[in-house]
Amino acid sequence: MQPYNYPSKYLENAVEEFAKLPGIGRRTALRLVLHLLNKPKEEVEQFSATLNEMVQNIHFCSICHNISDNDICSICSSTSRDKTTICVVETIKDVMSIENTMQYKGLYHVLGGVINPMEGVGPADLNIESLVNRLKSNDINEVIMALSATTEGDTTNFYIYKKIKDYNIVVTTLARGVAFGNELEYTDEITLGRALLNRVKFNNSFSVE
Amino acid sequence: MQPYNYPSKYLENAVEEFAKLPGIGRRTALRLVLHLLNKPKEEVEQFSATLNEMVQNIHFCSICHNISDNDICSICSSTSRDKTTICVVETIKDVMSIENTMQYKGLYHVLGGVINPMEGVGPADLNIESLVNRLKSNDINEVIMALSATTEGDTTNFYIYKKIKDYNIVVTTLARGVAFGNELEYTDEITLGRALLNRVKFNNSFSVE
Repeated sequence: MQPYNYPSKYLENAVEEFAKLPGIGRRTALRLVLHLLNKPKEEVEQFSATLNEMVQNIHFCSICHNISDNDICSICSSTSRDKTTICVVETIKDVMSIENTMQYKGLYHVLGGVINPMEGVGPADLNIESLVNRLKSNDINEVIMALSATTEGDTTNFYIYKKIKDYNIVVTTLARGVAFGNELEYTDEITLGRALLNRVKFNNSFSVE
Repeated sequence: MQPYNYPSKYLENAVEEFAKLPGIGRRTALRLVLHLLNKPKEEVEQFSATLNEMVQNIHFCSICHNISDNDICSICSSTSRDKTTICVVETIKDVMSIENTMQYKGLYHVLGGVINPMEGVGPADLNIESLVNRLKSNDINEVIMALSATTEGDTTNFYIYKKIKDYNIVVTTLARGVAFGNELEYTDEITLGRALLNRVKFNNSFSVE
């Protein structure tokens, strides 16, 4: 694609800013900026004010590293959550996904990613130390490892497991198997193999309902 | 999709603002906002400052309604452009597309859309009056109608043509035919029919090169 000849440097700057966002190229960025230009000035100022307000006011929970409006997030400070179970996830999005299942009432711990030497992410870049400290100083019965079902996720699982295996805490991982709605014909052999090995008694498979 | 339980109202507000943009749903908006949250605060403030700067400083050219940093855009104020030809387009993006072809050296007139009764856009909502005034008061030889090849575009073409047909100005439209790279098999019959009717002598078809 040819570079555009922008009729205005202000327009160009705004397009460049939008094009920095993931999955947004220059063409889409231009469409978004022209859309904003068609709006009243106040709406665009509102847009930028909201972003500024967010970065200035948002906190990360000092216990679980989830996003929060306060120093301690609403999940960690809730009295109705099960404080003996911690679910370890990669990102804030994963917390939101698990919360949406309405199946989990424990606490979380957001690692901020997984160990990935190829991308230069080592254990020190993740919130692993604070997890170990939480497990040491609190009365935790179970840690649920809910990381991606990838090599990097598995590596991180093992790394954390080795650190905490002496603490007398049950460590579990998410069940792996054929996803709901998937046809066997299109399920890859690793998933199918694991699903066979970890087969469950018929009644059990409906126990969450 | 279930509504997310946002862990922070600032996060939610920012997601709502992004989700107002065309083609961006809540899921993408969340991804963009979380991406911004991972960046240093200054980058996000830079992002909003650029948007604010744009809406505060950008002008629309008082002659052709193109976007401009000044009262008169760089095309209208250029001395090297052919000031006897005006190309009528729908949007600023069309100006940029035509400029990218490097085939046109005349001036532009941005209508701001086409007549579309279904969406409540009438002639009075478009920059048609200012076009007629430009044609009356300047020495224009040719008006090139470069609107969409749709019913609405054709309606607008006819409306403008009726208004200006007595001014002794040549009115032309973009050539319609089989697009470069298209295979006949997949060309729709209206396009193919028109391309047959408007067939050109073999040499002519390479005259732009």
